[in-house]
Amino acid sequence: MASDQGARVTAAVLIIGDEILSGRTQDTNLRDIARYLGVHGVDVAEVRIVPDVIDEIATALNHLRGRYDYVVTTGGIGPTHDDITADAVAFAFGVELYEHPDILKMMQAKYELTPARRRMARIPTGGGLVQNPVNGPPGFTIGNVFVLAGVPQIMRGMLEDVGHRLKGGAVTVSRTVRVLGSGEGVIAAPLEAVAKAHPGMSLGSYPFFSPESFGSNLVLRGRDPDEVEATVGELIAALQAAGIANVAEVEG
Amino acid sequence: MASDQGARVTAAVLIIGDEILSGRTQDTNLRDIARYLGVHGVDVAEVRIVPDVIDEIATALNHLRGRYDYVVTTGGIGPTHDDITADAVAFAFGVELYEHPDILKMMQAKYELTPARRRMARIPTGGGLVQNPVNGPPGFTIGNVFVLAGVPQIMRGMLEDVGHRLKGGAVTVSRTVRVLGSGEGVIAAPLEAVAKAHPGMSLGSYPFFSPESFGSNLVLRGRDPDEVEATVGELIAALQAAGIANVAEVEG
Repeated sequence: MASDQGARVTAAVLIIGDEILSGRTQDTNLRDIARYLGVHGVDVAEVRIVPDVIDEIATALNHLRGRYDYVVTTGGIGPTHDDITADAVAFAFGVELYEHPDILKMMQAKYELTPARRRMARIPTGGGLVQNPVNGPPGFTIGNVFVLAGVPQIMRGMLEDVGHRLKGGAVTVSRTVRVLGSGEGVIAAPLEAVAKAHPGMSLGSYPFFSPESFGSNLVLRGRDPDEVEATVGELIAALQAAGIANVAEVEG
Repeated sequence: MASDQGARVTAAVLIIGDEILSGRTQDTNLRDIARYLGVHGVDVAEVRIVPDVIDEIATALNHLRGRYDYVVTTGGIGPTHDDITADAVAFAFGVELYEHPDILKMMQAKYELTPARRRMARIPTGGGLVQNPVNGPPGFTIGNVFVLAGVPQIMRGMLEDVGHRLKGGAVTVSRTVRVLGSGEGVIAAPLEAVAKAHPGMSLGSYPFFSPESFGSNLVLRGRDPDEVEATVGELIAALQAAGIANVAEVEG
């Protein structure tokens, strides 16, 4: 149900880390990045999660940066031996790493420059910095790639230095209609009819079940706020005409 | 820090759904799948999240099923027009969909067979069923691919019918050592020394920060329980020798 591809500005998210793949850590960065980019008119179109292996990171990065307008990576930029994202990004771009003098200076002002900490001063030749308002050294950017920390608080802080660099498209507007007490089996037909009448929009059904209630959240997305507004009304009317009584718009 | 590739049994997870990519819904299925597979000796080695677009799903699936021992997909198997996972899997395998008689029978016993509901009875030719102990029709399996629901409760229920079909490798054992009040800048050197002494294991550092405390969780993973046990002791000793006092093993 993708809408007008011409108007779309897209991003991929590349999440780096064995601890996400193992299920030990629950990723929340994707959600924060997708919402943040959405506000800037950039849609996340694909996500990959890869292990702490240079070849895996570089291969995924080269594919994604060629296919989408932007790539945001998270994780692997700390000082320990398993932090190899800078190495992988430099390898992917075919450039060398160097110690950025501003980062060295900033770190020297705060702590002793151990060899491990010096690792965090390395960025690929041709790259620029992404400020870290939270704690520790900055992230970096090269080409259409933004390389951010994996720790959620720091990642969110770094994102604030990303938005103003994006050339976003039209912002996607999202509205939610909730059906209570009816399953997707009866929702599907009226929903599909309304979706077909609005090929430029995306209409999805996301069912929920709990001991107390069941139903589905119907999410309407589009770039024309007037069309989205009108479609909410059409969908509610179509559901009611199909005999579904408990239906109302809710906060998305 | 991948260990002996020969002994490893790997899986990829393919998460299907615009609602995850948009950041509207927080995925939790990956964590549940990774932990479940880990117990069965199967490591999640890559994850992709793709939109509700048949070509995107099929392309990702064909890549992943060729590269890893197993693929688990979540999402897109309901009755609505945006539920296209069965179509995409059949397309990827180059086979037709058919209505499975057992699913039709099960659905007929419970509700009226609307055209939308009939969609959920379709599975690819050559596939088998994955039981759904929670609610509604089953998932399915074809080749080395397991196609599960996206709703977390249902996904977890279906997983119980997956484990007994897996040929797992050695189970990975995981232990966690927590350092409080020291940053990665001082942890890095002793950690790296211990990691280098155990090339068959994976040692990762996952820092945390809060208003109350900071530090890092050092996670040790390996397939030889005796080596993992011994390495926990070595790491604690190496950290203490580097002047790091507040270090102890914690529940992982």
